[in-house]
Amino acid sequence: MIYAADYILTQNAARECLRGGAIAVEGGRIADIGPLAEVRARRPAAEVLDLGEAVIMPGLINGHTHIPMSALRGFSDDKALMDWLQKDIFPIENRLTRDIIRTASLFSCAELIRTGCTAFYDMYMMADAAAGAASEAGLRAVLGESVTMYFPGLAGATERELFDRVRGYALAWKNDPLITGAVAPHAVYTTSPGLLERCRDLADETGFLFAMHMAETEGETETCLKRNGMRPLGYCNSLGILRGDTTLFHMVDVDDGDLRITSECGCAVVHNPASNMKLASGVAPIPRMTELGIPVALGTDGPASNNAQNMVREMYLASLLQKVDNLDPLEAPASAVLDMATLGGAKALHNPDIGSLEKGKLADFIAVDLTSPNMQPVHNIVSNIVYSATGFENRLTVVNGRILYQDGEFKTLDYAALRAKIRLIRDWVHQ
Amino acid sequence: MIYAADYILTQNAARECLRGGAIAVEGGRIADIGPLAEVRARRPAAEVLDLGEAVIMPGLINGHTHIPMSALRGFSDDKALMDWLQKDIFPIENRLTRDIIRTASLFSCAELIRTGCTAFYDMYMMADAAAGAASEAGLRAVLGESVTMYFPGLAGATERELFDRVRGYALAWKNDPLITGAVAPHAVYTTSPGLLERCRDLADETGFLFAMHMAETEGETETCLKRNGMRPLGYCNSLGILRGDTTLFHMVDVDDGDLRITSECGCAVVHNPASNMKLASGVAPIPRMTELGIPVALGTDGPASNNAQNMVREMYLASLLQKVDNLDPLEAPASAVLDMATLGGAKALHNPDIGSLEKGKLADFIAVDLTSPNMQPVHNIVSNIVYSATGFENRLTVVNGRILYQDGEFKTLDYAALRAKIRLIRDWVHQ
Repeated sequence: MIYAADYILTQNAARECLRGGAIAVEGGRIADIGPLAEVRARRPAAEVLDLGEAVIMPGLINGHTHIPMSALRGFSDDKALMDWLQKDIFPIENRLTRDIIRTASLFSCAELIRTGCTAFYDMYMMADAAAGAASEAGLRAVLGESVTMYFPGLAGATERELFDRVRGYALAWKNDPLITGAVAPHAVYTTSPGLLERCRDLADETGFLFAMHMAETEGETETCLKRNGMRPLGYCNSLGILRGDTTLFHMVDVDDGDLRITSECGCAVVHNPASNMKLASGVAPIPRMTELGIPVALGTDGPASNNAQNMVREMYLASLLQKVDNLDPLEAPASAVLDMATLGGAKALHNPDIGSLEKGKLADFIAVDLTSPNMQPVHNIVSNIVYSATGFENRLTVVNGRILYQDGEFKTLDYAALRAKIRLIRDWVHQ
Repeated sequence: MIYAADYILTQNAARECLRGGAIAVEGGRIADIGPLAEVRARRPAAEVLDLGEAVIMPGLINGHTHIPMSALRGFSDDKALMDWLQKDIFPIENRLTRDIIRTASLFSCAELIRTGCTAFYDMYMMADAAAGAASEAGLRAVLGESVTMYFPGLAGATERELFDRVRGYALAWKNDPLITGAVAPHAVYTTSPGLLERCRDLADETGFLFAMHMAETEGETETCLKRNGMRPLGYCNSLGILRGDTTLFHMVDVDDGDLRITSECGCAVVHNPASNMKLASGVAPIPRMTELGIPVALGTDGPASNNAQNMVREMYLASLLQKVDNLDPLEAPASAVLDMATLGGAKALHNPDIGSLEKGKLADFIAVDLTSPNMQPVHNIVSNIVYSATGFENRLTVVNGRILYQDGEFKTLDYAALRAKIRLIRDWVHQ
């Protein structure tokens, strides 16, 4: 199969944008990329889907979300973080069932697919339930089991029960082409030192990746200093749990010492501008991270705090937030935030085979329509994608060479049935 | 004609949201509003358009834009304000023609109509050309002639020529149901005291409204202090040009003295979060303005700096920017920014007949689809509109009782022809 469009934005090392280009897909990978005439000449028998006035580009990578939380979109807003979490979110989460997690996860997958996301890093209880949803939807994902010291019944009534479930998850999804597991202790303030160490051991035992919420607020730092005499990064580093397989979500309240630890341990960072703004957590020092060579991705955070899982909006916010916070309009240009949402995302998911359109890489891509009034004229295709698009211009989502969405139609999900189910879940929330 | 939907968000004094409501339109005004069964019983012969899973709400009001600048969307980004303006924007503007202004304005109207805007306050050279475009598109608009001391040939080679053209504009559009004129001196730094006073007189003579860019950056304040020994608001107040008919765009670098002047003179303010963030101008102190009872509207600013004219995105940014800047998640809740984009917009346009859906008010409304994955579930309709929507959920735009857009179809514009023309303008820009 050959996919052609007016523009192919490769995100390769030279950041080439091909006019009138095409990519050929074989066995889930990009077999060829170049001018349409040449690609077609090399594969005369292949079917050609020419999208015309559109740009084919790498699928956007959502570095941090909680897909089962779509059930709670808009349920509680304009609240302080701890009030929001403890008074509104936790009581509902204590009533969750595996079935609700699965349905809400599928519904989130529809949103991700619709808005041009092809891969994501999730973190929630019952990660294996969300893994089933991602797999059914056909999305690529790292799904981390969230671990706290509270052990709510659903995820496992004891540490042993929860860890054994994670071992089962590892076994069941081993070598899956789309699904990767992770152990994801929730945060320093919801775990003990021993539990963090045992989570690290579990990740090593299962071959899972490792991730945490980290340095999200000043309050988190203060609590950690009081309890452990160290800031969150220093504390985790003293436990030896930070490695090259580790992804840190948020990283708002960090100083240069924290960033040196991050860099030396080889961790990747996921920046969540919408969530950090809406919950008033603060502004992550992204320019300094980039200076230090720390890989930075973008994430939406969960739909209960964002309230959308839309990576186009996240790119836009990432740029504008740094500009106004640094009072420098040259900060975080369009190209830099696009890099974060593609190549940076690949690093946060520890998957070097995604993030750009190059021969041999996995066939994960989208096609952004350029015909709507916000997308014309095209003086600079990257500017239009980052500063003018909304996410709903996407008309094609392909993962592993498989079409998941095309021109209004979900190919892997029964969207009408999902909509009916999410309305029932809404009523369940209000019970 | 009766319009019905699952939700009618009235924005009336009690901020009622009717479930299963309807509005009846007669002679360009809202003749009835209430539960569908009752409205239908009172008008049994009326045709009913039932939009189902959608919310009918007041059309969004864009308090500040430059519609002819769609030609330059994405042409110059990630630049310092003065470099952007003087090196990239002004040289192109010096080559503009009336025909290009008209076409680019029509193209912007398509974007505004598509994303749910029903009325806007524009400011540009040749406001009468933009007025023609708005009228053809069927949008409600205040169109202010931008005046600087430079008098580029297009707008008028001398002050006399320009002012006479404004007088002609006033005569030609007098008593138009949609179009209102304004005199809009560009800013304190591009005008002289005498010119500002003569602009004020021209507004009084023609019965036009009055508007200015005001206190957009610290640099503007410094320049004004150096030249006039006063901050921009004090300087303008000393000239006696600020009145109850006056709308001030931006108001970023303002202190309490500036806000007292604004309040005492009865001026309205238009806040432009996207533009202020992208150009790194800073953060306008909106909570303080609200405390002082100053009417605050939202605007996109022009598509060359934004780079979209999407009031849904602007509401979202207005909320998030205040939350993160004040480090307070309770600041600028969804309901407050929705008020700014509707009732606040009515005040900025000095039109008390728009901004809410009430019997007797003008029939300017939109219908936001709730079926896409970012809009479900509906726990709180206002949260979903402000925090989850993108603007492209809008499926119906009605102004003065006339349908301008419905389900993918522009009723007043030949969008395909406009797209072809905007591509030619793109090539003209690069000549």
